[in-house]
Amino acid sequence: MTVKIEGVSEEVAAAMQETFANQGALQALGAKMTRIGRGTCEIVIPKSEAVTQHHGTFHGGVFGTMADTVGGFAAYSVLMPSRDGVAVEYKINMLAPGDGDALVGRAKVIKAGRSLAITTGEIFSSKNGEEKLCAIFQQTLFVIDKK
Amino acid sequence: MTVKIEGVSEEVAAAMQETFANQGALQALGAKMTRIGRGTCEIVIPKSEAVTQHHGTFHGGVFGTMADTVGGFAAYSVLMPSRDGVAVEYKINMLAPGDGDALVGRAKVIKAGRSLAITTGEIFSSKNGEEKLCAIFQQTLFVIDKK
Amino acid sequence: MTVKIEGVSEEVAAAMQETFANQGALQALGAKMTRIGRGTCEIVIPKSEAVTQHHGTFHGGVFGTMADTVGGFAAYSVLMPSRDGVAVEYKINMLAPGDGDALVGRAKVIKAGRSLAITTGEIFSSKNGEEKLCAIFQQTLFVIDKK
Amino acid sequence: MTVKIEGVSEEVAAAMQETFANQGALQALGAKMTRIGRGTCEIVIPKSEAVTQHHGTFHGGVFGTMADTVGGFAAYSVLMPSRDGVAVEYKINMLAPGDGDALVGRAKVIKAGRSLAITTGEIFSSKNGEEKLCAIFQQTLFVIDKK
Repeated sequence: MTVKIEGVSEEVAAAMQETFANQGALQALGAKMTRIGRGTCEIVIPKSEAVTQHHGTFHGGVFGTMADTVGGFAAYSVLMPSRDGVAVEYKINMLAPGDGDALVGRAKVIKAGRSLAITTGEIFSSKNGEEKLCAIFQQTLFVIDKK
Repeated sequence: MTVKIEGVSEEVAAAMQETFANQGALQALGAKMTRIGRGTCEIVIPKSEAVTQHHGTFHGGVFGTMADTVGGFAAYSVLMPSRDGVAVEYKINMLAPGDGDALVGRAKVIKAGRSLAITTGEIFSSKNGEEKLCAIFQQTLFVIDKK
Repeated sequence: MTVKIEGVSEEVAAAMQETFANQGALQALGAKMTRIGRGTCEIVIPKSEAVTQHHGTFHGGVFGTMADTVGGFAAYSVLMPSRDGVAVEYKINMLAPGDGDALVGRAKVIKAGRSLAITTGEIFSSKNGEEKLCAIFQQTLFVIDKK
Repeated sequence: MTVKIEGVSEEVAAAMQETFANQGALQALGAKMTRIGRGTCEIVIPKSEAVTQHHGTFHGGVFGTMADTVGGFAAYSVLMPSRDGVAVEYKINMLAPGDGDALVGRAKVIKAGRSLAITTGEIFSSKNGEEKLCAIFQQTLFVIDKK
């Protein structure tokens, strides 16, 4: 799976991909970053033993991991390379069970200010290529100037 | 690590532990349920490669997984065995990096009504036996009557 | 200010407007419902002494009132007249001070299930006819069947 | 109703009370600050036409106003007089209708860092002197250094 990159510099895309690769939690879930845009991001988490709850569908915690991650990387796309962001809170509504063969998360930056960035996004369950909206979220990041 | 059980029947404790064991996402993280009370629960997630972000501390998504899980099991302690609960939303504030050797989550049921249960909880980073508060959360579950 | 109505029956629109008129809190703020659609709603709260915080801009609580109200009425547009909805939680991110001469809230229903309805929306500050995005929110309502 | 003050300087208490008096939205609701502590605050909103929804109980927006306000003033008690705080987000769960003759909100500061303060609190409905828990909330404020 190659990453589709649009609207950000090679430097930003490379920094995002390196950060993504360095997150053990994402590697353990087999997560892939599939799209990077200016202020947007798409991530896919495939179905595996590591993502399930007791009914065999995607665990609510994996929805939270998706929200925290895809929102964060959408923010990185406008903050990097000179600035970093740290998620300070998020809120997620789960609308339907994640019963597909993958979760697809898409986030966008609503505001990237000097101190705070706010993102929102949607998480879909993908089954045989068809997507169903399963969750929506809002997230706040604290913005950090790198030296 | 044995589970400390207080205030719930053996049947409830057994149902909770079976549900916990059947959640692949928790097994992948090495999570343990360490205390069960009437309307309360404690869960521990040890440090491993599977929980880190790029700075090597606990990933924000693992905080979400902890919140969703420990809140849910606190609710199960009053709902099981005749009823089940499904998390429909949660919100988490992260106060400090999870830089310890384990995350410890503790939740309590604020209300368990006929249709909805509300929980709240705290997540601590444990380092050399000392705990530091790292996150707080609120969660809503939809209550389901089992046949 | 007349209400623009589209996509809902006269009965639904009338029920929504009667409910709106019976909310003392909205009357005290001088709130007006300006648009009703199928699963959408728009409400305006004009600037007055009753809405300000100590810097003279719209109070954070008025943002919350707007979120709770416009989300609720968006849900009513699909639930009424046979069903009612009660907000059980909402979460709001404030992005910028509400320094205009009115707040404009727009909400849409993301899901209206048998038991729960989820809405999301945006709140703008309007100044000399120009709108600036000031807040975003998510809300959950519990759905009630009327006898 | 006199304000019970404990653990804060006269200067801080005076600054808090002046700020409170200058919020038109609180005056319109007849809100009173009844307790100030170090990192804590209590506020009361009496029943009136200005707070009701269509069933005659306290409006969900008034719950939000209470959360935003009592959380904010709890934060002010540790930030003032050298620093100020601006609420950037809050999330509220409503557990029961506010059917009493007053709402009583109590908040405490969970963390007051250099850039962000986090508060949590409970809102009770008071009826003939008896309190019933009606809502819980979490709030984030951005901290501002005054010149």
